[in-house]
Amino acid sequence: MQDWLDYTDHDFVKRLGDGGLPRAKYLNYLIQDYIFLIHFSRAWALAVTKTELPDEMRLCASILDSLVNEEIQLHIETCLKEGLTESEIIAANEAPENIAYTRYVLDVGHRGDFIDLLSVLAPCVMGYGEIGLNLRRNKTSENYAEWVDVYSGEDYQKTCFEMANLIDGAIKRRMGDNFTSTIRWPVLCDQFRQATLLESAFWDMSFR
Amino acid sequence: MQDWLDYTDHDFVKRLGDGGLPRAKYLNYLIQDYIFLIHFSRAWALAVTKTELPDEMRLCASILDSLVNEEIQLHIETCLKEGLTESEIIAANEAPENIAYTRYVLDVGHRGDFIDLLSVLAPCVMGYGEIGLNLRRNKTSENYAEWVDVYSGEDYQKTCFEMANLIDGAIKRRMGDNFTSTIRWPVLCDQFRQATLLESAFWDMSFR
Amino acid sequence: MQDWLDYTDHDFVKRLGDGGLPRAKYLNYLIQDYIFLIHFSRAWALAVTKTELPDEMRLCASILDSLVNEEIQLHIETCLKEGLTESEIIAANEAPENIAYTRYVLDVGHRGDFIDLLSVLAPCVMGYGEIGLNLRRNKTSENYAEWVDVYSGEDYQKTCFEMANLIDGAIKRRMGDNFTSTIRWPVLCDQFRQATLLESAFWDMSFR
Amino acid sequence: MQDWLDYTDHDFVKRLGDGGLPRAKYLNYLIQDYIFLIHFSRAWALAVTKTELPDEMRLCASILDSLVNEEIQLHIETCLKEGLTESEIIAANEAPENIAYTRYVLDVGHRGDFIDLLSVLAPCVMGYGEIGLNLRRNKTSENYAEWVDVYSGEDYQKTCFEMANLIDGAIKRRMGDNFTSTIRWPVLCDQFRQATLLESAFWDMSFR
Repeated sequence: MQDWLDYTDHDFVKRLGDGGLPRAKYLNYLIQDYIFLIHFSRAWALAVTKTELPDEMRLCASILDSLVNEEIQLHIETCLKEGLTESEIIAANEAPENIAYTRYVLDVGHRGDFIDLLSVLAPCVMGYGEIGLNLRRNKTSENYAEWVDVYSGEDYQKTCFEMANLIDGAIKRRMGDNFTSTIRWPVLCDQFRQATLLESAFWDMSFR
Repeated sequence: MQDWLDYTDHDFVKRLGDGGLPRAKYLNYLIQDYIFLIHFSRAWALAVTKTELPDEMRLCASILDSLVNEEIQLHIETCLKEGLTESEIIAANEAPENIAYTRYVLDVGHRGDFIDLLSVLAPCVMGYGEIGLNLRRNKTSENYAEWVDVYSGEDYQKTCFEMANLIDGAIKRRMGDNFTSTIRWPVLCDQFRQATLLESAFWDMSFR
Repeated sequence: MQDWLDYTDHDFVKRLGDGGLPRAKYLNYLIQDYIFLIHFSRAWALAVTKTELPDEMRLCASILDSLVNEEIQLHIETCLKEGLTESEIIAANEAPENIAYTRYVLDVGHRGDFIDLLSVLAPCVMGYGEIGLNLRRNKTSENYAEWVDVYSGEDYQKTCFEMANLIDGAIKRRMGDNFTSTIRWPVLCDQFRQATLLESAFWDMSFR
Repeated sequence: MQDWLDYTDHDFVKRLGDGGLPRAKYLNYLIQDYIFLIHFSRAWALAVTKTELPDEMRLCASILDSLVNEEIQLHIETCLKEGLTESEIIAANEAPENIAYTRYVLDVGHRGDFIDLLSVLAPCVMGYGEIGLNLRRNKTSENYAEWVDVYSGEDYQKTCFEMANLIDGAIKRRMGDNFTSTIRWPVLCDQFRQATLLESAFWDMSFR
């Protein structure tokens, strides 16, 4: 769908691939993404509270642990390598587009059930996986190779597969095998779409 | 089903009807029920946060308002009339059965979506309506006529009808007209049943 | 402080007062404000779940009830009178600034305790009260007299006083009389300030 | 305090130490504790959602991960070794005392802020650490040596120290160094005490 392409094939993404993204914009993105990860991790933690099934809890807790104990740490290191100081990162103001996105995800999570929350967690996780693979194939510059390596890398791609399985199992268990013909399905799709639009707005913000 | 009868036709209820309930047990019940209403009201407030549909919000807010601004107030007045002091009421320890019931309802509400929460709010509201009507027809003593009058009265019965409509509409909107044949239906029934068991345990506690 | 003036003396407010606000922008604002009220009401409902004190629950439930059963209704009527159809109102997309504001409030509420939530509910309630009074004194046009009448009116001003008392009592009860010298006070002020900035962004959006 | 001793020196604990605990009661305890761990893990996940500080998130996510990906797994293995089948474990009904305890913890977490939640998570974590050490020193039978080894073991004791540091830091950061003289301190102590009473009730239930 068009909304998905607007996000995964956004100009910000293209400039990561052809190296044309100004360094200052990349740094600004990294800082906002650091704040994003804090609240996105809180949303993954919320997911653990929304199920009683040990296997679902286990997978969400693993993803949360890798977000909080690895990816956030990685972001700080990358920022430091780029010459930012830790105090600059922490002192940064959260952009309105950033607030809108993560708090929307958290609210859908609080308001609905486990699969409502998954429907708005999915666009970020799966989209970055797709963008990573696309850029690995098509990039024409090595300027942002490090970013591409992370999201096209084995670890991240494995997380995407695990999440796809998690969603699949969670939906079938709660909505049956013919889930796409239930009255609920369009609601989940709308939520997925809203989160996708907020992802595109995040790129827009990073590009300004 | 048997669990429903165990609750609506509990010995505590029978003794309300034949007047055999010792006054001390009734007072203990009133105090625990006062604490119950605090947390049950919090659960109805939670329900407002679980929907975005104005008509659903409106009805839940009305029920909440009547619980908090009328029923809790009525309970305090009844307790005072029975010779309890306000400090005795407030100083009372919440019984474990009371904690188990209301916190279970709140947890299902936080964990699930709007209809999950309705499934565990229903047994108390609807059961008291049924008990009230039963006792009005069959009671053989006027000892607890005031209690019977409240729950068989027009106001309370109207709330029961409104809640039945609310549940009906909310379920059909989210699960379709054939909701009883969905994979989700037994889950909602299990939650309804668990809340019903916790209601019976509340009577047991009041009877001790 | 400057952030407060940026909000309460925003150009959008000035144009309400001198009548220079284009009708189309006013209608757009009304529609977004209708969506805002839905989620702001959910946040007031959340407040009821964050306390166990009957008097605090009572006041929050009253405010919620008047928001849901009066103010939202009033908004629909005003929109209809302005020539909008109900389907136009419901079909409207929620602006990102709208999402950011209400979901931020809800998140602070879920994350923190009762007074955290009050700190982010306050700017909207109190600010509209102040704006209403300012415009009643200083307005030079009757174009938007209806809006001014609502927020400078007795009912709304009474709600502001009640909320001020609620906040005052809630803070003293939980932080003591010297609350401004606690380590927590600046945190509450920061949250108040963030919500104020998001209010200004809401005016910006309405003015575009 | 007496409530703490009632919990940490409960008859159930004494019989673990002198080997007098009937095997059937131990198995019943293991099953209920398995269900307990599911909901207690959900409460630790909730803790991650209640803070924005990376170091606090990190520690809570680690504890959650070890609960969900190790301790729950360990419980299943122990149950299987004791001759229970997985279906017996999963089919078990949750005891009311179990419901009361975990749902109380979750509710305090949803209602209050990060340190409210820590105040009710602490009795279980810290108490088991203390019981483990006591039994290692004083046990007169090897019947339940495996249980004692786990909770007196290095891994578990390290978790206790980390949690003590977490609580200490979280409280000082939010209440200042003189936190015991704040108006809030007795509230936190009451919550700690309530959770401690619910722990004792859990032993009572396991002993029946």
